[in-house]
Amino acid sequence: MDTSPQPFPTPSEQPAHVDLNLPPEFAAHVPPDAVPHPAACPPLRWGIVGPGGIAHKFARNVREGTGCEVTAVGSRDQARAEAFAAQHGLAVAVEGYGELVTREEVDAVYIATPHSAHREAALLAIEAGKHVLIEKAFTRNAAEAREVVAAARAASVFCMEAMWSRFLPHQVVARHLVRSGLLGELVEVVADHGQALTHVPRLLDPALAGGALLDLGVYPISFIVSMLGEPLAVDALGHRSESGVDAISVSNLSYPGAIGVGTTTLLASTPTRAFVAGREGCLEFDSRFYEPGGLTATLGEQVVRWEGTPTLGGFEFQVAEVAHGVAAGQTESAVLPLHETVVVMEVMDAVRRALGARFPGE
Amino acid sequence: MDTSPQPFPTPSEQPAHVDLNLPPEFAAHVPPDAVPHPAACPPLRWGIVGPGGIAHKFARNVREGTGCEVTAVGSRDQARAEAFAAQHGLAVAVEGYGELVTREEVDAVYIATPHSAHREAALLAIEAGKHVLIEKAFTRNAAEAREVVAAARAASVFCMEAMWSRFLPHQVVARHLVRSGLLGELVEVVADHGQALTHVPRLLDPALAGGALLDLGVYPISFIVSMLGEPLAVDALGHRSESGVDAISVSNLSYPGAIGVGTTTLLASTPTRAFVAGREGCLEFDSRFYEPGGLTATLGEQVVRWEGTPTLGGFEFQVAEVAHGVAAGQTESAVLPLHETVVVMEVMDAVRRALGARFPGE
Repeated sequence: MDTSPQPFPTPSEQPAHVDLNLPPEFAAHVPPDAVPHPAACPPLRWGIVGPGGIAHKFARNVREGTGCEVTAVGSRDQARAEAFAAQHGLAVAVEGYGELVTREEVDAVYIATPHSAHREAALLAIEAGKHVLIEKAFTRNAAEAREVVAAARAASVFCMEAMWSRFLPHQVVARHLVRSGLLGELVEVVADHGQALTHVPRLLDPALAGGALLDLGVYPISFIVSMLGEPLAVDALGHRSESGVDAISVSNLSYPGAIGVGTTTLLASTPTRAFVAGREGCLEFDSRFYEPGGLTATLGEQVVRWEGTPTLGGFEFQVAEVAHGVAAGQTESAVLPLHETVVVMEVMDAVRRALGARFPGE
Repeated sequence: MDTSPQPFPTPSEQPAHVDLNLPPEFAAHVPPDAVPHPAACPPLRWGIVGPGGIAHKFARNVREGTGCEVTAVGSRDQARAEAFAAQHGLAVAVEGYGELVTREEVDAVYIATPHSAHREAALLAIEAGKHVLIEKAFTRNAAEAREVVAAARAASVFCMEAMWSRFLPHQVVARHLVRSGLLGELVEVVADHGQALTHVPRLLDPALAGGALLDLGVYPISFIVSMLGEPLAVDALGHRSESGVDAISVSNLSYPGAIGVGTTTLLASTPTRAFVAGREGCLEFDSRFYEPGGLTATLGEQVVRWEGTPTLGGFEFQVAEVAHGVAAGQTESAVLPLHETVVVMEVMDAVRRALGARFPGE
């Protein structure tokens, strides 16, 4: 199957749901409307805060893959905002987050700054009554996450962590398979994400909330929490960089009758696989598990393979989730509730504590 | 490449070493004589203690793949010994371990009883002046392992744990690649071994030294130790079965600047993969990593694939190691020294302690 990026049909031809083309063994456990077609999502006007690399992907995915549009961008540097706006055909480019979040052309704000600035930008947007999608890691730590969540709830705006992987078709399918009981009672959820990134100064800088966990480890940990929920306890082992951020770690999450194990590092590129093992079967994700890909289920002697489904960049699914939620008058996602985002931050806090890796002011 | 079992050439045609047919990127780091051809090993007459499933594989692999022969078998049950001898064409079938180890037709004893009987059988064989190859796990715990090692050293017999995987061509190649520095400084070694085996009563029985660790977890832990050596510290998380043996665990091994992570369970079948990640590259083993298979190295943007080499059953390589060691007058293997076997037992003791999983009398 061709899984390379390809343009979606134009909106008038949109089916309401993605045709997953599942093998029968999977289809029996997944509702046909499991993945809303992102190109058919309700309209929503987005403003972007922080015009970095990830914001470029976001803008492309919104334009090419959803029913939404990006209308505005804000940066601490006006020239950078203008360059971004020119590249993506946006009408509004402003200097300063406060200016962006108050623009009338903006319904929802996508926060793509370094982690260390998430809290401030999110609180500004929420105060302005805007819905917010906040790049993972959501904030620097759980205390900041709780503050943002409380503000969003008080303002009755939609608020979500931009953990895009959770909305990808193969992860949606995987959760349906697991929850249907296909794998039996869960025993182990193991996930890994390592990339050799020591050439990126931000990642080694405690002042910018650097470290492997908040950029990479957040994927395995969120994956484990999506499968097993809130852990009873967290333990960890690892090493800090010379600059003091977490550089290598294994996170051990304890559950009744099961364990979750997440490995991450910014010193080495690793296979980035994940699996969910239950008493009746095992589901393995292709590398890289957090990007669109396929699944292999081993059920006793039977092996069932699904190649996945064509996607655009992958961000279109999380954007559609926000657009649907806002249109329905919700304030958070049922797929990625704010409670789970706080749990993920608490786990990462615990792992950093075990490693002695603190950010300034913590 | 065809990696299915196939008969070796007859001894007169044996090359001295296995032709590994490595890609040039690997061959530059592996000596051409890295793997002695097992069919060309010196002769050694083997007696088997404990005619179970693994002993059948051992007898076949010795006969079809090495220069050695199996001459005798001993069991607590004479009828079982005789049935085994008849099946494999052995001249001698005796009742009792003490009777087997004193037979004149036996130079070396392969101990394939349940773990709980390893110590006793090994001490008997060593006392009789016989060389010993002891199935993994070597003993129930490190204290018993030290006792066996001390006895073997005092008697100047060759003694080795039957961790057959360590002698397989792909694991030999992997160690050469790692030690050559191809992957740079090591960061993470991660390995997994889970099988759904709750239908096997022995594995759930503390009196027989059951549990996932001693049967399955010993593979990931020995693999980590083969790559990173003796850990500075060990921590673990997991759950016991209702019968009290370790059923699910993750073992965290700490090293200067690196970590080793091993997962194991007897409740679920898992992908059984392993990888070694360094600052310059990552080496991933095919599933199942502990059986003959291939390797994939990712070195920056370059991916190098090696399919592995044809093997028979896989046990022929460890048998050849013993035969070469005995012929050279050695008393332990340089590839799997007794110190490392004791370290592996110490790690497993620490993991069981963390889980509260004890054997009777411990």
